[in-house]
Amino acid sequence: MTRSEKRDFPVEEARHFLEPGPVVLISSHCDGASNIMTLGWHSILAFAPSLVNCMISSGNHSFEMIRRTGECVINLPTLDLADIVSKVGNCTGSEVDKFAEFGLTAKPAEIVYAPLIDECHACFECRVYDDAMVNNYNYFIFEIVKAHVAGDPEHPKTIHYMGDGKFMVAGDVIDRKEFFTKVN
Amino acid sequence: MTRSEKRDFPVEEARHFLEPGPVVLISSHCDGASNIMTLGWHSILAFAPSLVNCMISSGNHSFEMIRRTGECVINLPTLDLADIVSKVGNCTGSEVDKFAEFGLTAKPAEIVYAPLIDECHACFECRVYDDAMVNNYNYFIFEIVKAHVAGDPEHPKTIHYMGDGKFMVAGDVIDRKEFFTKVN
Repeated sequence: MTRSEKRDFPVEEARHFLEPGPVVLISSHCDGASNIMTLGWHSILAFAPSLVNCMISSGNHSFEMIRRTGECVINLPTLDLADIVSKVGNCTGSEVDKFAEFGLTAKPAEIVYAPLIDECHACFECRVYDDAMVNNYNYFIFEIVKAHVAGDPEHPKTIHYMGDGKFMVAGDVIDRKEFFTKVN
Repeated sequence: MTRSEKRDFPVEEARHFLEPGPVVLISSHCDGASNIMTLGWHSILAFAPSLVNCMISSGNHSFEMIRRTGECVINLPTLDLADIVSKVGNCTGSEVDKFAEFGLTAKPAEIVYAPLIDECHACFECRVYDDAMVNNYNYFIFEIVKAHVAGDPEHPKTIHYMGDGKFMVAGDVIDRKEFFTKVN
Protein backbone atom coordinates (compact mmCIF):
# COMPACT_ATOMS: atom_id res chain seq x y z
CA MET A 1 0.00 0.00 0.00
CA THR A 2 1.32 3.45 -0.79
CA ARG A 3 0.81 6.34 1.56
CA SER A 4 2.00 9.87 0.94
CA GLU A 5 4.78 11.00 3.24
CA LYS A 6 3.72 12.35 6.59
CA ARG A 7 4.44 15.93 7.52
CA ASP A 8 4.60 17.69 10.82
CA PHE A 9 1.15 19.01 11.63
CA PRO A 10 -0.09 21.52 14.24
CA VAL A 11 -1.20 19.52 17.28
CA GLU A 12 -4.15 21.81 17.92
CA GLU A 13 -5.55 20.84 14.51
CA ALA A 14 -5.47 17.09 15.19
CA ARG A 15 -9.15 17.48 16.02
CA HIS A 16 -9.97 17.93 12.32
CA PHE A 17 -9.26 14.21 11.96
CA LEU A 18 -10.47 12.89 15.32
CA GLU A 19 -13.63 14.95 15.87
CA PRO A 20 -15.67 13.17 13.15
CA GLY A 21 -15.36 10.02 15.28
CA PRO A 22 -13.19 7.50 13.38
CA VAL A 23 -12.00 4.23 14.80
CA VAL A 24 -8.33 4.59 15.73
CA LEU A 25 -5.44 2.24 16.38
CA ILE A 26 -3.65 2.91 19.67
CA SER A 27 -0.02 1.83 19.75
CA SER A 28 1.98 1.50 22.95
CA HIS A 29 5.39 0.29 24.09
CA CYS A 30 6.41 -1.13 27.46
CA ASP A 31 9.18 -3.44 28.70
CA GLY A 32 10.62 -3.87 25.21
CA ALA A 33 7.35 -4.87 23.53
CA SER A 34 4.95 -2.90 21.35
CA ASN A 35 1.24 -3.48 21.04
CA ILE A 36 -1.79 -2.17 19.14
CA MET A 37 -5.45 -1.95 20.03
CA THR A 38 -8.52 -0.79 18.13
CA LEU A 39 -10.55 1.94 19.81
CA GLY A 40 -13.76 3.76 19.00
CA TRP A 41 -14.56 5.50 22.27
CA HIS A 42 -12.72 8.79 22.23
CA SER A 43 -13.49 12.47 21.93
CA ILE A 44 -11.79 15.83 21.72
CA LEU A 45 -11.74 17.82 24.93
CA ALA A 46 -9.75 20.98 24.16
CA PHE A 47 -7.90 22.70 21.31
CA ALA A 48 -4.86 24.04 23.16
CA PRO A 49 -3.49 22.11 24.90
CA SER A 50 -4.68 19.54 22.36
CA LEU A 51 -6.58 17.14 24.63
CA VAL A 52 -8.37 13.95 23.67
CA ASN A 53 -9.93 11.41 25.95
CA CYS A 54 -10.05 7.67 25.39
CA MET A 55 -11.96 4.95 27.20
CA ILE A 56 -9.50 2.06 27.26
CA SER A 57 -11.11 -0.93 28.91
CA SER A 58 -8.89 -2.41 31.60
CA GLY A 59 -9.38 -5.84 30.02
CA ASN A 60 -7.11 -4.77 27.14
CA HIS A 61 -3.46 -5.79 27.18
CA SER A 62 -2.67 -2.18 26.21
CA PHE A 63 -4.28 -0.78 29.36
CA GLU A 64 -1.40 -1.46 31.76
CA MET A 65 1.19 -0.61 29.10
CA ILE A 66 -0.34 2.84 28.70
CA ARG A 67 -1.00 3.35 32.39
CA ARG A 68 2.57 2.44 33.34
CA THR A 69 4.32 4.45 30.62
CA GLY A 70 1.82 7.31 30.43
CA GLU A 71 2.25 7.30 26.65
CA CYS A 72 0.69 6.07 23.44
CA VAL A 73 0.22 6.99 19.80
CA ILE A 74 -3.26 7.49 18.31
CA ASN A 75 -3.05 6.31 14.69
CA LEU A 76 -5.73 7.03 12.08
CA PRO A 77 -6.47 4.07 9.78
CA THR A 78 -8.48 4.29 6.56
CA LEU A 79 -10.77 2.00 4.57
CA ASP A 80 -7.90 0.01 3.05
CA LEU A 81 -7.04 -1.13 6.59
CA ALA A 82 -10.58 -2.18 7.61
CA ASP A 83 -9.75 -5.91 7.71
CA ILE A 84 -6.64 -5.31 9.80
CA VAL A 85 -8.46 -2.89 12.12
CA SER A 86 -11.04 -5.60 12.77
CA LYS A 87 -8.46 -8.32 13.31
CA VAL A 88 -6.35 -6.11 15.62
CA GLY A 89 -9.45 -5.55 17.73
CA ASN A 90 -10.18 -9.25 17.96
CA CYS A 91 -6.97 -10.69 19.34
CA THR A 92 -4.84 -9.82 22.34
CA GLY A 93 -1.32 -8.51 22.64
CA SER A 94 -0.73 -11.01 25.42
CA GLU A 95 -0.70 -13.74 22.75
CA VAL A 96 0.09 -12.02 19.46
CA ASP A 97 2.78 -9.61 18.23
CA LYS A 98 0.30 -7.56 16.24
CA PHE A 99 2.87 -5.60 14.22
CA ALA A 100 4.37 -8.88 12.94
CA GLU A 101 1.08 -10.74 12.61
CA PHE A 102 -0.59 -8.04 10.52
CA GLY A 103 2.44 -6.75 8.62
CA LEU A 104 2.26 -3.27 10.11
CA THR A 105 5.34 -1.03 10.21
CA ALA A 106 6.42 0.33 13.59
CA LYS A 107 8.20 3.61 12.99
CA PRO A 108 9.97 5.45 15.82
CA ALA A 109 8.02 8.39 17.18
CA GLU A 110 9.77 11.67 17.99
CA ILE A 111 8.72 12.29 21.57
CA VAL A 112 7.21 9.08 22.98
CA TYR A 113 8.53 5.51 23.01
CA ALA A 114 5.32 4.08 21.55
CA PRO A 115 5.75 3.53 17.78
CA LEU A 116 3.91 5.20 14.91
CA ILE A 117 1.98 2.83 12.63
CA ASP A 118 3.34 3.90 9.28
CA GLU A 119 0.42 2.51 7.24
CA CYS A 120 -1.99 4.96 8.92
CA HIS A 121 -2.94 8.34 7.46
CA ALA A 122 -2.03 10.22 10.62
CA CYS A 123 -0.22 9.50 13.88
CA PHE A 124 -0.66 11.55 17.03
CA GLU A 125 1.92 11.13 19.79
CA CYS A 126 0.25 11.37 23.18
CA ARG A 127 1.14 11.67 26.83
CA VAL A 128 -1.29 11.17 29.69
CA TYR A 129 -2.48 14.61 30.81
CA ASP A 130 -4.94 13.59 33.54
CA ASP A 131 -5.53 10.12 34.95
CA ALA A 132 -8.12 11.10 37.57
CA MET A 133 -10.85 9.13 35.76
CA VAL A 134 -8.81 6.00 35.06
CA ASN A 135 -9.77 4.11 38.21
CA ASN A 136 -13.50 4.77 37.96
CA TYR A 137 -14.04 4.75 34.19
CA ASN A 138 -10.85 3.47 32.49
CA TYR A 139 -10.81 6.95 31.11
CA PHE A 140 -7.54 8.59 30.02
CA ILE A 141 -7.15 12.22 29.08
CA PHE A 142 -4.21 12.52 26.69
CA GLU A 143 -2.37 15.53 25.40
CA ILE A 144 -1.35 15.26 21.74
CA VAL A 145 2.26 16.42 21.88
CA LYS A 146 3.26 15.78 18.27
CA ALA A 147 1.22 15.20 15.10
CA HIS A 148 2.25 13.55 11.82
CA VAL A 149 -0.24 13.70 8.92
CA ALA A 150 0.02 12.43 5.32
CA GLY A 151 0.00 15.20 2.73
CA ASP A 152 -2.89 13.67 0.82
CA PRO A 153 -5.69 12.84 0.44
CA GLU A 154 -7.08 15.90 2.16
CA HIS A 155 -10.13 13.91 3.26
CA PRO A 156 -9.06 10.36 4.13
CA LYS A 157 -11.64 7.58 3.98
CA THR A 158 -11.78 7.01 7.72
CA ILE A 159 -13.97 4.23 9.13
CA HIS A 160 -16.41 4.73 11.99
CA TYR A 161 -17.48 1.80 14.11
CA MET A 162 -21.22 1.20 14.44
CA GLY A 163 -21.26 -2.00 16.50
CA ASP A 164 -22.17 -5.47 15.19
CA GLY A 165 -18.98 -5.69 13.11
CA LYS A 166 -20.06 -2.81 10.85
CA PHE A 167 -18.29 0.42 9.99
CA MET A 168 -19.56 3.61 8.37
CA VAL A 169 -17.08 4.90 5.79
CA ALA A 170 -16.47 8.65 5.59
CA GLY A 171 -18.56 10.11 2.76
CA ASP A 172 -18.83 13.52 1.12
CA VAL A 173 -17.59 16.70 2.75
CA ILE A 174 -20.00 19.65 2.84
CA ASP A 175 -19.17 23.26 3.70
CA ARG A 176 -21.55 25.38 5.76
CA LYS A 177 -19.06 28.12 6.66
CA GLU A 178 -21.56 30.71 5.46
CA PHE A 179 -23.60 30.09 8.61
CA PHE A 180 -20.67 30.38 11.00
CA THR A 181 -20.04 33.58 12.89
CA LYS A 182 -16.67 32.33 14.11
CA VAL A 183 -15.04 29.39 12.41
CA ASN A 184 -13.05 26.87 14.35
CA MET B 1 -39.65 17.37 5.99
CA THR B 2 -41.03 13.90 6.62
CA ARG B 3 -39.54 11.61 9.18
CA SER B 4 -40.69 8.09 9.94
CA GLU B 5 -42.31 7.64 13.31
CA LYS B 6 -39.95 7.06 16.20
CA ARG B 7 -40.12 3.83 18.15
CA ASP B 8 -38.86 2.90 21.56
CA PHE B 9 -35.33 1.64 21.24
CA PRO B 10 -33.06 -0.24 23.68
CA VAL B 11 -30.96 2.36 25.50
CA GLU B 12 -27.87 0.15 25.45
CA GLU B 13 -27.95 0.24 21.65
CA ALA B 14 -27.94 4.03 21.41
CA ARG B 15 -24.23 3.66 20.82
CA HIS B 16 -24.90 2.32 17.29
CA PHE B 17 -25.85 5.89 16.39
CA LEU B 18 -23.49 7.89 18.60
CA GLU B 19 -20.28 5.88 18.35
CA PRO B 20 -19.55 6.87 14.73
CA GLY B 21 -19.15 10.44 15.99
CA PRO B 22 -22.03 12.54 14.57
CA VAL B 23 -22.72 16.11 15.53
CA VAL B 24 -25.71 16.15 17.87
CA LEU B 25 -28.24 18.73 19.03
CA ILE B 26 -28.57 18.94 22.80
CA SER B 27 -31.93 20.17 24.04
CA SER B 28 -32.54 21.33 27.59
CA HIS B 29 -35.29 22.93 29.66
CA CYS B 30 -34.99 25.13 32.71
CA ASP B 31 -37.17 27.81 34.34
CA GLY B 32 -39.87 27.47 31.69
CA ALA B 33 -37.57 27.92 28.69
CA SER B 34 -36.12 25.38 26.29
CA ASN B 35 -32.85 25.69 24.44
CA ILE B 36 -30.73 23.82 21.87
CA MET B 37 -26.99 23.65 21.29
CA THR B 38 -24.86 21.92 18.68
CA LEU B 39 -22.21 19.58 20.05
CA GLY B 40 -19.49 17.48 18.48
CA TRP B 41 -17.40 16.51 21.49
CA HIS B 42 -18.94 13.40 22.93
CA SER B 43 -18.18 9.72 23.23
CA ILE B 44 -19.67 6.49 24.47
CA LEU B 45 -18.37 5.32 27.83
CA ALA B 46 -20.33 2.15 28.65
CA PHE B 47 -23.06 -0.11 27.24
CA ALA B 48 -25.07 -0.82 30.39
CA PRO B 49 -25.76 1.51 32.00
CA SER B 50 -25.77 3.37 28.68
CA LEU B 51 -23.26 6.14 29.40
CA VAL B 52 -22.14 8.94 27.10
CA ASN B 53 -19.95 11.87 27.94
CA CYS B 54 -20.24 15.35 26.52
CA MET B 55 -17.91 18.32 26.75
CA ILE B 56 -20.28 21.26 27.10
CA SER B 57 -18.30 24.47 27.23
CA SER B 58 -19.38 26.63 30.16
CA GLY B 59 -19.70 29.56 27.76
CA ASN B 60 -22.86 27.98 26.34
CA HIS B 61 -26.25 29.16 27.55
CA SER B 62 -27.18 25.45 27.84
CA PHE B 63 -24.41 24.74 30.33
CA GLU B 64 -26.15 26.10 33.43
CA MET B 65 -29.53 24.79 32.26
CA ILE B 66 -28.11 21.28 32.13
CA ARG B 67 -26.04 21.62 35.27
CA ARG B 68 -29.00 22.89 37.30
CA THR B 69 -31.57 20.39 36.02
CA GLY B 70 -29.22 17.42 35.56
CA GLU B 71 -31.07 16.59 32.35
CA CYS B 72 -30.94 16.94 28.57
CA VAL B 73 -31.87 15.18 25.37
CA ILE B 74 -29.23 14.19 22.82
CA ASN B 75 -30.89 14.50 19.39
CA LEU B 76 -29.40 13.05 16.19
CA PRO B 77 -29.75 15.36 13.17
CA THR B 78 -29.14 14.30 9.57
CA LEU B 79 -27.92 15.93 6.37
CA ASP B 80 -31.24 17.67 5.67
CA LEU B 81 -30.71 19.64 8.89
CA ALA B 82 -27.11 20.72 8.17
CA ASP B 83 -28.03 24.40 7.73
CA ILE B 84 -30.05 24.46 10.93
CA VAL B 85 -27.36 22.56 12.86
CA SER B 86 -24.86 25.22 11.79
CA LYS B 87 -27.16 28.11 12.66
CA VAL B 88 -28.11 26.61 16.04
CA GLY B 89 -24.39 26.42 16.84
CA ASN B 90 -23.82 30.04 15.90
CA CYS B 91 -26.30 31.90 18.05
CA THR B 92 -27.06 31.86 21.76
CA GLY B 93 -30.12 30.82 23.70
CA SER B 94 -29.71 33.92 25.81
CA GLU B 95 -30.89 35.96 22.80
CA VAL B 96 -32.82 33.55 20.58
CA ASP B 97 -35.64 31.05 21.09
CA LYS B 98 -34.04 28.47 18.84
CA PHE B 99 -37.10 26.22 18.49
CA ALA B 100 -39.13 29.17 17.17
CA GLU B 101 -36.32 30.75 15.17
CA PHE B 102 -35.47 27.58 13.26
CA GLY B 103 -38.92 26.01 13.08
CA LEU B 104 -38.03 22.97 15.14
CA THR B 105 -40.71 20.97 16.94
CA ALA B 106 -40.32 20.50 20.69
CA LYS B 107 -42.04 17.26 21.61
CA PRO B 108 -42.48 16.18 25.25
CA ALA B 109 -40.03 13.56 26.40
CA GLU B 110 -41.17 10.66 28.57
CA ILE B 111 -38.76 10.85 31.50
CA VAL B 112 -37.00 14.22 31.42
CA TYR B 113 -38.36 17.77 31.12
CA ALA B 114 -36.04 18.65 28.23
CA PRO B 115 -37.92 18.33 24.91
CA LEU B 116 -37.26 15.93 22.03
CA ILE B 117 -36.49 17.62 18.70
CA ASP B 118 -38.98 15.86 16.50
CA GLU B 119 -37.16 16.59 13.21
CA CYS B 120 -34.18 14.51 14.34
CA HIS B 121 -33.71 10.83 13.45
CA ALA B 122 -33.22 9.79 17.07
CA CYS B 123 -33.66 11.33 20.50
CA PHE B 124 -31.93 10.06 23.62
CA GLU B 125 -33.25 11.23 26.99
CA CYS B 126 -30.37 11.73 29.42
CA ARG B 127 -29.77 12.31 33.10
CA VAL B 128 -26.45 13.37 34.58
CA TYR B 129 -24.76 10.23 35.93
CA ASP B 130 -21.49 11.74 37.17
CA ASP B 131 -20.56 15.41 37.37
CA ALA B 132 -17.12 14.96 38.94
CA MET B 133 -15.40 16.33 35.81
CA VAL B 134 -17.70 19.29 35.24
CA ASN B 135 -15.69 21.82 37.22
CA ASN B 136 -12.31 20.94 35.72
CA TYR B 137 -13.28 20.06 32.14
CA ASN B 138 -16.94 21.05 31.57
CA TYR B 139 -17.35 17.34 31.16
CA PHE B 140 -20.70 15.66 31.85
CA ILE B 141 -21.25 11.92 32.02
CA PHE B 142 -24.87 11.22 31.09
CA GLU B 143 -26.91 8.07 31.35
CA ILE B 144 -29.28 7.53 28.43
CA VAL B 145 -32.49 6.60 30.22
CA LYS B 146 -34.84 6.43 27.23
CA ALA B 147 -34.24 6.15 23.48
CA HIS B 148 -36.53 7.04 20.57
CA VAL B 149 -35.36 6.10 17.06
CA ALA B 150 -37.05 6.51 13.67
CA GLY B 151 -37.88 3.20 11.99
CA ASP B 152 -36.07 4.10 8.81
CA PRO B 153 -33.69 4.67 7.17
CA GLU B 154 -31.55 2.05 8.89
CA HIS B 155 -28.43 4.10 8.23
CA PRO B 156 -29.27 7.80 8.57
CA LYS B 157 -27.06 10.36 6.80
CA THR B 158 -25.51 11.76 9.95
CA ILE B 159 -23.08 14.69 9.71
CA HIS B 160 -19.71 14.75 11.44
CA TYR B 161 -18.03 18.04 12.22
CA MET B 162 -14.50 18.52 10.93
CA GLY B 163 -13.83 22.10 11.99
CA ASP B 164 -13.67 25.13 9.67
CA GLY B 165 -17.41 25.01 9.00
CA LYS B 166 -17.15 21.63 7.24
CA PHE B 167 -18.96 18.38 7.91
CA MET B 168 -18.27 14.85 6.72
CA VAL B 169 -21.49 13.12 5.68
CA ALA B 170 -21.95 9.46 6.63
CA GLY B 171 -21.04 7.28 3.63
CA ASP B 172 -21.28 3.58 2.85
CA VAL B 173 -21.62 0.94 5.53
CA ILE B 174 -19.26 -2.04 5.36
CA ASP B 175 -19.52 -5.30 7.28
CA ARG B 176 -16.42 -6.99 8.71
CA LYS B 177 -18.22 -9.32 11.10
CA GLU B 178 -16.27 -12.25 9.67
CA PHE B 179 -13.19 -10.99 11.55
CA PHE B 180 -14.95 -10.58 14.89
CA THR B 181 -14.64 -13.22 17.57
CA LYS B 182 -17.31 -11.55 19.66
CA VAL B 183 -19.63 -9.02 18.10
CA ASN B 184 -20.85 -6.04 20.05
